Amino acid sequence: MNDKLEMIYRRRSVRSYADTPLTGEEIGILQKAATLSPSAMNEQPWFFVIIENQEIIHEIEALHEPSGNCYGAPVLIAAFAKKDAIAPLMDTSIALANIIYAAEAMDLSSCIIYFVKNVFNNPSYAKLKEAMGVPEGYICVSGVVIGHGLEEKQIAEGRKEDIFSVII
Amino acid sequence: MNDKLEMIYRRRSVRSYADTPLTGEEIGILQKAATLSPSAMNEQPWFFVIIENQEIIHEIEALHEPSGNCYGAPVLIAAFAKKDAIAPLMDTSIALANIIYAAEAMDLSSCIIYFVKNVFNNPSYAKLKEAMGVPEGYICVSGVVIGHGLEEKQIAEGRKEDIFSVII
Repeated sequence: MNDKLEMIYRRRSVRSYADTPLTGEEIGILQKAATLSPSAMNEQPWFFVIIENQEIIHEIEALHEPSGNCYGAPVLIAAFAKKDAIAPLMDTSIALANIIYAAEAMDLSSCIIYFVKNVFNNPSYAKLKEAMGVPEGYICVSGVVIGHGLEEKQIAEGRKEDIFSVII
Repeated sequence: MNDKLEMIYRRRSVRSYADTPLTGEEIGILQKAATLSPSAMNEQPWFFVIIENQEIIHEIEALHEPSGNCYGAPVLIAAFAKKDAIAPLMDTSIALANIIYAAEAMDLSSCIIYFVKNVFNNPSYAKLKEAMGVPEGYICVSGVVIGHGLEEKQIAEGRKEDIFSVII
């Protein structure tokens, strides 16, 4: 099997991280992968807040107690979609996948952090969203953490296989 | 640069295909990549209709005249999301990205075909959706075509770079 397919097959959500920060080069690669993502009519209807400040990550976790957990990762990226675009949710989700696979390509690990959406889309925390530089008219789709994983990646179990219909 | 990053950077939407069909092995790899995609609470809230029948692809194009174009690709995959899941649109979109990158890993090309959503979600064509084996309660997110591309992949132009806020 080629190593590119292997990367796709071996990706797993990792829920424990070393506190080693990402380098500037690593962050730059994640950014570049996001910018090169496909989008409907090339609208690129996304915005990303890259949070390396651990205090702020802990604050965001605390805003979603008890289940707000970023697993000790050095970086949390919150992804936002432009509400009035053609396919904002799809395009931004695929850009998130681009970030996840750029991380895998560097032997880093990731986990989608869905609770972040509830924090940033909560009108009570509109000031936080504004302070993070999110433009008007964007809603949070999800977060993702990236870092040096401390877990062995488990073999994927319980994957559904009856999810295809093939029309020949 | 490693070849995995290069794969992510070089992916482009390709809009012209040879009529060479995909092999069973290639289809199997696309399927496996989809099944291994991440999802909120491991719900795997997706369903895929893999259409290799050219007559049916042309019928779907004709249902969305004049802009319904699958670019002569040998395979159209329509992706459906379970409406009442936690994150149906995000999860299914990321699974679409998995299919796209599995294609890239095999040196195949792809293009997201968004109009397919309008066809399958049109109540007038509910019978078509049913005939394709889509379970109750699933909505179409998008389609994607996969095949042997006939275009040189263009350099990405006009990518937005002011889409990040970095919080250190």
